[in-house]
This record gives sequence, structure tokens and C-alpha cells, in this order.
Amino acid sequence: MKILGISGSLRTGSWNTSALHAAAELLPEHHLGIAEIGDLPLMNQDLEKDGTFPPEVERLRQEIRGADAILFATPEYNASIPAPLKNAIDWGSRGGNVWADKPAAIIGVSPGVLGTARGQYPLRQTLGVLNLHLLGQPEVFIGGAGAKFQDGKLTDEPTRAFLAKMLEAFITFAAKVNQA
Amino acid sequence: MKILGISGSLRTGSWNTSALHAAAELLPEHHLGIAEIGDLPLMNQDLEKDGTFPPEVERLRQEIRGADAILFATPEYNASIPAPLKNAIDWGSRGGNVWADKPAAIIGVSPGVLGTARGQYPLRQTLGVLNLHLLGQPEVFIGGAGAKFQDGKLTDEPTRAFLAKMLEAFITFAAKVNQA
Amino acid sequence: MKILGISGSLRTGSWNTSALHAAAELLPEHHLGIAEIGDLPLMNQDLEKDGTFPPEVERLRQEIRGADAILFATPEYNASIPAPLKNAIDWGSRGGNVWADKPAAIIGVSPGVLGTARGQYPLRQTLGVLNLHLLGQPEVFIGGAGAKFQDGKLTDEPTRAFLAKMLEAFITFAAKVNQA
Amino acid sequence: MKILGISGSLRTGSWNTSALHAAAELLPEHHLGIAEIGDLPLMNQDLEKDGTFPPEVERLRQEIRGADAILFATPEYNASIPAPLKNAIDWGSRGGNVWADKPAAIIGVSPGVLGTARGQYPLRQTLGVLNLHLLGQPEVFIGGAGAKFQDGKLTDEPTRAFLAKMLEAFITFAAKVNQA
Repeated sequence: MKILGISGSLRTGSWNTSALHAAAELLPEHHLGIAEIGDLPLMNQDLEKDGTFPPEVERLRQEIRGADAILFATPEYNASIPAPLKNAIDWGSRGGNVWADKPAAIIGVSPGVLGTARGQYPLRQTLGVLNLHLLGQPEVFIGGAGAKFQDGKLTDEPTRAFLAKMLEAFITFAAKVNQA
Repeated sequence: MKILGISGSLRTGSWNTSALHAAAELLPEHHLGIAEIGDLPLMNQDLEKDGTFPPEVERLRQEIRGADAILFATPEYNASIPAPLKNAIDWGSRGGNVWADKPAAIIGVSPGVLGTARGQYPLRQTLGVLNLHLLGQPEVFIGGAGAKFQDGKLTDEPTRAFLAKMLEAFITFAAKVNQA
Repeated sequence: MKILGISGSLRTGSWNTSALHAAAELLPEHHLGIAEIGDLPLMNQDLEKDGTFPPEVERLRQEIRGADAILFATPEYNASIPAPLKNAIDWGSRGGNVWADKPAAIIGVSPGVLGTARGQYPLRQTLGVLNLHLLGQPEVFIGGAGAKFQDGKLTDEPTRAFLAKMLEAFITFAAKVNQA
Repeated sequence: MKILGISGSLRTGSWNTSALHAAAELLPEHHLGIAEIGDLPLMNQDLEKDGTFPPEVERLRQEIRGADAILFATPEYNASIPAPLKNAIDWGSRGGNVWADKPAAIIGVSPGVLGTARGQYPLRQTLGVLNLHLLGQPEVFIGGAGAKFQDGKLTDEPTRAFLAKMLEAFITFAAKVNQA
């Protein structure tokens, strides 16, 4: 299965991006690539010309179209979707929603105890309206990130085991959604 | 009163930006300026260096600090906050939240019947967490924009009258919030 | 397919209950029954004794367990889930969540233009956490109910046609979710 | 100041009800009474007759009208508002919204780490639409309740100190909202 990972944080050394790398390791039989979203222009309909988007946007839309499933890993910014992630989502929704019918799941990592619990629901609201099919359970709220990641790697074993279990549920779910 | 207007749409000829211009006309005794948010870089903590932000971000943060009240006019993108607006909000929240304790109100304009009703609640969630004080009622959902705006101006009289009434409530509310 | 309809309104002559009756007519090859939720006690964990629930609650839980799919038709009360519906949902979640893995869809009818657009997202948040599988699109917001229902029947033809189309998508979706 | 406390849990020995008792102790110069909401009938418009409500509903509405401020203490049920609390809110909104313009704050206690973080935002959405004025910060998420309460009393000193600080902010906020 070809999985597109999208991190909501552009920061070098982002825990959420690291969580995507961990997911790639935990899914050796599948291919998980990570989308570049940091070079997209800010969403602006004036940049759509005759149904054509800026090249960075076209690239992302092509990657989404080619994916069998989407894995979001994202912090919450102000109890909601980080701007860079919302920007990628908004570009994918224009001129023919390329997100439609894709199976998807959400991981969240944060330094505090809440583990992005507040931000995941506004994200679910948006993704649901775009007709992605979202894995319901288990939800992944990884709090206390400072002690669970070292040198950009998810090193906490219970968290890796939980993530592995969630990814297994996700693969099963995605296969079901994708079958004819 | 010095009011900072922020439009969630970067599109030339945006109905929401036009609604801010209408609000400025309806408030002749106050000053309503419109913030530029289209040139901000995408939110990325790596761009904060020694507590300093990129110049466009510093400019916006200065405008927020100097405002007595904030008026948001915004479409909904995918039942949530448009990326450019979320980006401005996220930059204002870093390194000392400059939004804190500002009175604020929300206007939404859309072509369909819902008038941004789905997107305003995720926006309220974020603004509440940032400790802005939000006007509760009346809520402003302006649907059917195509027939209410002409040549970039809000021309529908009942809508102008309703907007004027809401702005009056907002000014009273903001004065109360701001008094010592 | 055995579908359990649940109306969020207890009112005699409720438009949402009428919408469920219309759905039953539009699905002649399936069986759609409507759950009684008006006689449930208010959710209170003290009423669970040794893993047993009050008889009205046991009855509802049995009906949910026996259903192949759930169809919610509900007004919004104060931009959220009506209390009687939340009560039914909460009882179903206790002592072994009987909602888990059921395919479900949402219809909303209201007198105003918004057609319950504000209340459906809090409902989706709750149902998603309970691991129901929700139909994403089409969303059904039936506004202006006063002109679309007569003598307790949904008589507006375009609305019936749209509902029929949505129900067709729901049946397909539910069959996919339920297959092994 | 006369404060009406409302607990979202009907359970004997509820942590949230205990948190209201702790708040009453921490506010010796004010009066905090706790509303009875467990005997209300399930919200049903048919029970309104000629503008009159059932006696339990009238009693609650009278208590709300007489209060200078409202303090909600509530668990989350299924990532949202508990049914008994939504029921009380819905009854207060009918036939003249008695919640309008009341200053209010929210406390949440739960056994897990999230401390009701998911349920407080749907509650804020509903209370905002009803035009209550909500304290934005500090938010109160009391997780790990099992170790913080003993024999129905909030005994954890850091939590009591934090609650005291939040209540001080609430009293100041409420006084400002209520002044002419």
C-alpha cells in the first residue's frame, strides 16, 4: 500500500514528522513517503489560473491522487489545525477535491499531557466534510513528547507498540475502504 | 476606537474583505484598518530567531497590539478556518500571545445558504483558547453573497442594517471589555 | 438490511421523525424501524447495577446491537446535539459500547435556513469517538421545513429525491462497512 | 455574588460535584449553590403548555434568572456534553433564553489524563450561542481524579490552589460583565 504521510509541523526536528518516520519503520511491507507542504503558497484562489495551480500545489495534488491512504501526524496550534496543514488541505480541496474517498488516520504528538486532543476534532470535522474516510479508533494522543523522542527518533517502547497496533488497524481499515 | 479588520480571504474582490469595507463605512466615528496577512510566511517555529520574527510577522503583531478591538470577516474553507487566517492567528499566538484580552467579533460571507455557519465554531474555539473576548450575539452569517454585493460593495440594505446593528453591539461590548 | 432510525426530537409531529418515515418509504427493500428514546431515564451511572441497566435502556441497547446500520434524524438544539439524543447515545456507550463499528448517517431538518448545519458536527465528533462509521457525503441539511412537510409527511419532491440519493449512497456504504 | 453551580454528573460521589463543593469553600465571601438537574424531564417541546414549563423546569429557570454567574463542573461523555447537562441547558434556552448575558466558567474533572479537554469545546460552542459570556483563561482540566479526591473532597493542594486562582479570575470577569 502506498501511504502519503503529512506532518502538520514545518519545524526541523518536529516530533510529528519523527512519528511519521517511526510509522514508516513499523510498516516495512508498505511504502510511506512524506509530503513536502512547506513550500506551498498561502491559499489564494487568484493563484488558480484556467484550472491550473502553482507547481508546488500541482505536485502535492498529484501525490494525494496517487496515494492509497493518508496518514496525518500533527501538533495542535491553538486548539486547532496548524496553518501549514490547513493550507495543504485547502489546496487539495479546490478544483476537484483530490482527498475524496481516501482512507485516512491521525496521529498527534505534543509536549504537554493533552497530546493534541483538542486539535484533532476540528481536523476531523474538516476531513469528514472532504469525504476522507477516517479511522475512528484507536485515537492516538502522544503527550509528554520530550521523554519519548531522542535525536529525532521515537524511542519510547510502549508508544511504538501502541503506534504499531494502531497502524495495523489502519491498514485493515484502508484495505476495506479501497476494495471495490 | 481603533479596530483591526482581518479578512480570511486573500482573493481580489473577496466578499469578506468587502464586508470589512462596509463595516468601516458604518463606523464613521471609529477607525477600522485592514491588516495585510497575505505576505506572511507559513507558520514555522524555525523562523523565530532569538525571540524575533520575520518582518511581516512583526508588523502584524504590532498592529494587533495597537488595536482596541478585532473584527474578523471570513469565509469557511472546508467547514473550518481558511489557511491564511489560521496562519495569521498562529503567528500572533507565539512568543507572547498578542491576541490576549482583545474584544473581537466575527462576520462571515458565503455564496451558499449557510453563510459560513460551519466554519465559525472552529474559529471561536481557537480564539477562545487565545483568550480573545468574543461577542456572542448577534452572529453574522451572510449567505447568498452573489445577490448582496455589487462591484465589491455590500449593497443589500437589510444586510447593511443588520451589520450596523451588530457593530453597535460590538462597540458597546468592546468598550466594556476594555474598561479598567 | 435492518436499519435503526433514531430521531433527536420527542415532539409529536417532529419534522425529523417524519423524515425517518419518509426514509422508510424510500427504502422498500430494507426494514427501517424507529427507536423509542423518550422513556429513557436521564443518564446516571448509579442506575447501572451489577452490569445491568434499567429495562428501557436494555431495550434500546438490544435494538442497537441488532441493527445493521443506524440513521439519525435530528434537529440542532443550541448548535449541538439535542438532550434526548445525547442521552440515548450516552446510554449506548456504557458497559460495552454497543455503537462500535456500526455504519451510520445523519439527516437534519430545521425551520430556518441552516438546516442543522451547526449541530451536526458536534454529533459527528461524538459518534466518531464511539467508533461508528459515518457517511461523509452527501450531507443532508434540510432547511425551511415549514414548506416541505405537510400533515407530518415530507412532500417536497426535490427534497425526497435528494434524500433518496443519499440513502442509496448510505446503503452502499453500510454494506461495505459490514462485509467481512 | 450569587453563583449557580451546575454539575454535569448525576452520580453520587461525582468528582465534578465535589469540585463545586471545593469551589464553594474557596469562595467564602460569595454564595455558591448547586442546582438540581437530575429530576428534570427529558427535553420535549410538548411539555411546554401555554408558555408554562413543568415545575422542575420552572424551578431551574428561576434559579438561573436569579444568579449573578454560572459555574459549570462537568465530565465529558463521549467527547461531548453529558446528557443531563445538555438537558438542563436546553430547558433554559426555551421560551426566552434565561442564560443570556450571564458570565460563566467551566471546570472539568476526569479520571484519565485529558481532564475533559475534548468535551469542553462542544460545551463552549453551545454556551456561546446562548450568549453566556465565558471565561477564556485559565482553562481547568483536572485529570487523574482518582488521586486528587478523597471521601468526596478535593484534597490535592496544587489543584486547590489552581482552582482558587481560576475562581479569582472568574469573579473579576463576572463583575466586569455584570456592571452596567
